[in-house]
Amino acid sequence: MIVNMSERATDQEITHIIERIREAGYQPHVTRGVERTIVAAVGNGRRHEIEALQVAPGVETVVPIAQPFKLVSRQVKPERSVVNVGGVAIGGLGVVVIAGPCSVESREQLLSTAQAVKRAGATMLRGGAYKPRTSPYDFQGLGIEALKILREARDESGLPVVTEVMSTEDVDIICEHAEMLQVGARNMQNFALLRRLATINKPVLLKRGPSATVKEWLLAAEYLLAGGNNQVVLCERGIKTFETEMRNTLDLAAVALARDLSHLPVIADPSHGTGKQSLIAAVSRAAVAVGADGLMIEVHPCPERALSDGPQSLDFAGFEKVMRAIASPLRGVAVSAAPAEVA
Amino acid sequence: MIVNMSERATDQEITHIIERIREAGYQPHVTRGVERTIVAAVGNGRRHEIEALQVAPGVETVVPIAQPFKLVSRQVKPERSVVNVGGVAIGGLGVVVIAGPCSVESREQLLSTAQAVKRAGATMLRGGAYKPRTSPYDFQGLGIEALKILREARDESGLPVVTEVMSTEDVDIICEHAEMLQVGARNMQNFALLRRLATINKPVLLKRGPSATVKEWLLAAEYLLAGGNNQVVLCERGIKTFETEMRNTLDLAAVALARDLSHLPVIADPSHGTGKQSLIAAVSRAAVAVGADGLMIEVHPCPERALSDGPQSLDFAGFEKVMRAIASPLRGVAVSAAPAEVA
Amino acid sequence: MIVNMSERATDQEITHIIERIREAGYQPHVTRGVERTIVAAVGNGRRHEIEALQVAPGVETVVPIAQPFKLVSRQVKPERSVVNVGGVAIGGLGVVVIAGPCSVESREQLLSTAQAVKRAGATMLRGGAYKPRTSPYDFQGLGIEALKILREARDESGLPVVTEVMSTEDVDIICEHAEMLQVGARNMQNFALLRRLATINKPVLLKRGPSATVKEWLLAAEYLLAGGNNQVVLCERGIKTFETEMRNTLDLAAVALARDLSHLPVIADPSHGTGKQSLIAAVSRAAVAVGADGLMIEVHPCPERALSDGPQSLDFAGFEKVMRAIASPLRGVAVSAAPAEVA
Amino acid sequence: MIVNMSERATDQEITHIIERIREAGYQPHVTRGVERTIVAAVGNGRRHEIEALQVAPGVETVVPIAQPFKLVSRQVKPERSVVNVGGVAIGGLGVVVIAGPCSVESREQLLSTAQAVKRAGATMLRGGAYKPRTSPYDFQGLGIEALKILREARDESGLPVVTEVMSTEDVDIICEHAEMLQVGARNMQNFALLRRLATINKPVLLKRGPSATVKEWLLAAEYLLAGGNNQVVLCERGIKTFETEMRNTLDLAAVALARDLSHLPVIADPSHGTGKQSLIAAVSRAAVAVGADGLMIEVHPCPERALSDGPQSLDFAGFEKVMRAIASPLRGVAVSAAPAEVA
Repeated sequence: MIVNMSERATDQEITHIIERIREAGYQPHVTRGVERTIVAAVGNGRRHEIEALQVAPGVETVVPIAQPFKLVSRQVKPERSVVNVGGVAIGGLGVVVIAGPCSVESREQLLSTAQAVKRAGATMLRGGAYKPRTSPYDFQGLGIEALKILREARDESGLPVVTEVMSTEDVDIICEHAEMLQVGARNMQNFALLRRLATINKPVLLKRGPSATVKEWLLAAEYLLAGGNNQVVLCERGIKTFETEMRNTLDLAAVALARDLSHLPVIADPSHGTGKQSLIAAVSRAAVAVGADGLMIEVHPCPERALSDGPQSLDFAGFEKVMRAIASPLRGVAVSAAPAEVA
Repeated sequence: MIVNMSERATDQEITHIIERIREAGYQPHVTRGVERTIVAAVGNGRRHEIEALQVAPGVETVVPIAQPFKLVSRQVKPERSVVNVGGVAIGGLGVVVIAGPCSVESREQLLSTAQAVKRAGATMLRGGAYKPRTSPYDFQGLGIEALKILREARDESGLPVVTEVMSTEDVDIICEHAEMLQVGARNMQNFALLRRLATINKPVLLKRGPSATVKEWLLAAEYLLAGGNNQVVLCERGIKTFETEMRNTLDLAAVALARDLSHLPVIADPSHGTGKQSLIAAVSRAAVAVGADGLMIEVHPCPERALSDGPQSLDFAGFEKVMRAIASPLRGVAVSAAPAEVA
Repeated sequence: MIVNMSERATDQEITHIIERIREAGYQPHVTRGVERTIVAAVGNGRRHEIEALQVAPGVETVVPIAQPFKLVSRQVKPERSVVNVGGVAIGGLGVVVIAGPCSVESREQLLSTAQAVKRAGATMLRGGAYKPRTSPYDFQGLGIEALKILREARDESGLPVVTEVMSTEDVDIICEHAEMLQVGARNMQNFALLRRLATINKPVLLKRGPSATVKEWLLAAEYLLAGGNNQVVLCERGIKTFETEMRNTLDLAAVALARDLSHLPVIADPSHGTGKQSLIAAVSRAAVAVGADGLMIEVHPCPERALSDGPQSLDFAGFEKVMRAIASPLRGVAVSAAPAEVA
Repeated sequence: MIVNMSERATDQEITHIIERIREAGYQPHVTRGVERTIVAAVGNGRRHEIEALQVAPGVETVVPIAQPFKLVSRQVKPERSVVNVGGVAIGGLGVVVIAGPCSVESREQLLSTAQAVKRAGATMLRGGAYKPRTSPYDFQGLGIEALKILREARDESGLPVVTEVMSTEDVDIICEHAEMLQVGARNMQNFALLRRLATINKPVLLKRGPSATVKEWLLAAEYLLAGGNNQVVLCERGIKTFETEMRNTLDLAAVALARDLSHLPVIADPSHGTGKQSLIAAVSRAAVAVGADGLMIEVHPCPERALSDGPQSLDFAGFEKVMRAIASPLRGVAVSAAPAEVA
């Protein structure tokens, strides 16, 4: 941490900062410039005590130097983590494709979807039992009934299941029925939930919040690891921006960045990331190319009849096209423009 | 809802949409233009079934017409609501000032702050017992101990208390100790928590999420009213934007807009809204001027020693200045530029 | 500037940075911590050479310490600037109200508007001759004809005129007809235009770009001052965010911040800032309360027939209401909640 | 266009809207629902006259139905356009790689870079002669001298050259020296410049503005086509969001969307899009995978000595790695999770 003193800071103010840095458990190192003085806090002290100095007299800004996360960091663990979800390795060699409906709506809907996505090559099944919906008047999910259907689909298809948990109260029952628990984007900083999930022995899929920086996302994951659960997979699903043609702005560079900063596997969700059926194949390819360890894609037997997220859901044929798209090679580079005689 | 058919939609596709609109409980009204056809869904049907038609063949877009919220709307209840918090009326004639520390850190800290803010004119006390913190390594609040201190401060000062609830599990204990429960910005769409708070007999302060549109914010409040709790106060506390000089961008126009769209009282939080001590007086004045029913302001005996939010906390003298600032008159309008002979 | 070395930086890499800091004209000051080393660049050197070190081997980040702007800064000139526009002082005691249509559409339209806004208390007239329009098929302004009408309106009403300049080629002709030249939000970083306007002897109104930070805005103003024109007024007119209910998000705290950082006058534009007739009175009050030195408001004889910006334009009666609104006192603070026996 | 009347609209207000729609050159079609009436404007009239009705009495909202752009649209021209830049086809089968320094700094710097990027497989050369810089104190480009060096590099390497134009006044001289003119992101809505470039016989590279929606970007391109120049290539280079770890948020889904909506070629700029050397290889791969017709990448002989954009520039070895990265195959899909006995 660096405390950047104002140009008009007095000697007394600088002395006060030096003392406060010592009190906070750091060693102060002073650099006096022509116009201003900076004081570095060196060592391992209480970070927040330095942050609060921002309002001490004579201080202009306090500048953090080190990243605030630890256990999720590649500086702590350079090798990549692999998370095992009911036999599927996320973070290993291949790209894991998780597919299924936004919401579990009925036994027939889910079982047929599970078979279809498996046939097309998916290796995990998704389906919402408890649904976070913007409006209280929208379909809120079938709850425990959906969990039972998910379990049946898993048993029948062999595909491990991930489903969203919205409340600490539902953690136990979901753990009984699913192989992986998803924290939805709007709950990324529901710290009570994170603390509870840190204590379970199941992998967690942590979606990035719609207004979370990569740093905040990794700190949310840090809650899980610090609490004892290191089976964590990150999922980029788009952030809120001014663009209105798409539901969210899928931040694919953040997938690469999160994999640079953290050893945890990172997957992408092109369905929420774009909100548009027509873009999912192209964006899925891009996610794989940028390094994502997996994809999460919404599939429904008849999207125009879906109880939620219809506009971004693929039908079975659409999903097969996506699977073919991510297997097809990249476009080649154009050959040199220069005519032979020039070059 | 309006279904806007593509220019190349076939008659069969249009017929299909007409049927689906009927199935969804609406009456279809068709308008055929030169280039395209639009089909309006008239009446009260199942909204999501029309939304999902966005992916039906031949459909270009589905355009909602009516606002999705009901009970919070001024169309349903034109007169403004007043929420009574332990004897303080929010939404009445005067501006309610809620002040206190970000976190309850000790008995002395809270009691002295309560006395100081009361003396300066505050009518409610704030203080966090359960703290949502970006990092798991930051101070997480004193929990029940803090609740007891809050209650003592209330008894001593007479100021009703608002404190944040982060989990359904803490609702009961907080209800016993505080006059009002706050839903923090990051929990605005924690629907499990909203559903639980809809069943209590205490007022709720609902902060706007950092990436929530005004519409989403009002729909979150709709969860509370639809569930039976109409003692709801909205709080604008800044949204996330690209601007980095301030912690958030306080959307003061949204205060006016929310009061236009909804009958619920709306207050503003200049502390989180700016993150900067030096801006709080000016922004508090602006919030009052735009029509806010109250202000929520962080005050600490010694901000540079605060365990959380020091940089945006005022000391007692700073808070007194803010109280004077919101009482001082607006700057007058410059007199006409025109020299007498011209006008 | 501080160069923050990676934890794994070698001695050789640190030595290289020390040399490069010297080369760039600064003095290097080294602080060695337990985990990492930081090197401060002290003095006045070539800033960009230090910035580029971000990609030197062993460097984690480069952190700027001082603000990059100079002449616009209050550190250089602590007292507030007052800009004289044809006899109207912007930045003085009173709030300057600039009103008029988005576009000059006809002689009658402008002259009647000038009279109406003057009668209501405006002290300057606005009106677009050259219009930046998102679509090439929209009305692009009357050009020179509009400039002549503006001059006539000024002569008749005595109100000094501000109008937008979109191109270096129009600077001379606009200087002949208007008292102040406006740089529109989308041209805030049209540096060719800024450099040209730095050479004229007329005041410039510099709107904040829709995605410009306060720092970038002040640096755009710095182009004008550095080039020789210090008659500059800043105008906050809203930034782009995810919120869609309003045209822009008016960043009123940025008005206070810009006035803290810079000595230049700052005004606000509630018309573009909200895009909504119904919010302009409340938001204008807020702008005055936050400290704005003026307001810029769109007024049209018949907004529903305006060739541009109709939805955010006020008619004459609406403008009179705004003028009354900014003159009315602030709502008082609610009296204490505490019953007498408790307090 | 649809005019959505308020629930409380009177018959007289509805009649007024019907008349105004006729006046604007459209046919009105009325749909009366239980709660509200909507009036569609059918045909080809004056769009802005309907937009302005938003403030007519009794109107709640005006909802556009058709996209506002025409000539750039695939509805007008379904087949993809190919733009020929000095013999290089952008929009054809292969991905065009444009590489070179941010700024032309010297003859040696540019010539060596041209040779290096050509050797690695680039087919076009970039280099700034006129530089848009946030601060007036930063390097502003070598101007005409740089243009001459660019021409020499083109002659020597055979790579066609693209360079940025910042002002109408520089259009002619740049046309003499470069094969393609770039409109920078901050000038995307510099309409005077766009109108001038619409009249030249050279291809234009139009960067997306940092706060421009895809719709606004296509409308900026529409200025060029409507003015007579259809040799236009679009370039996504990142938008401004709250994320601070990267310089911009590269919106790769927008590349796919722009190619869906428009027939124009679309390329991506991972250098500005991320601002981070370390992410460019991964993001370049993603851009190719999402369907980009080309890449624009900053390369410098020694990024830590670059006069601009050093932190996002690659050295020659780094650029070679990117070229290899975009040629390497996509990661395969993980094989099914289900053990044989279960499936």
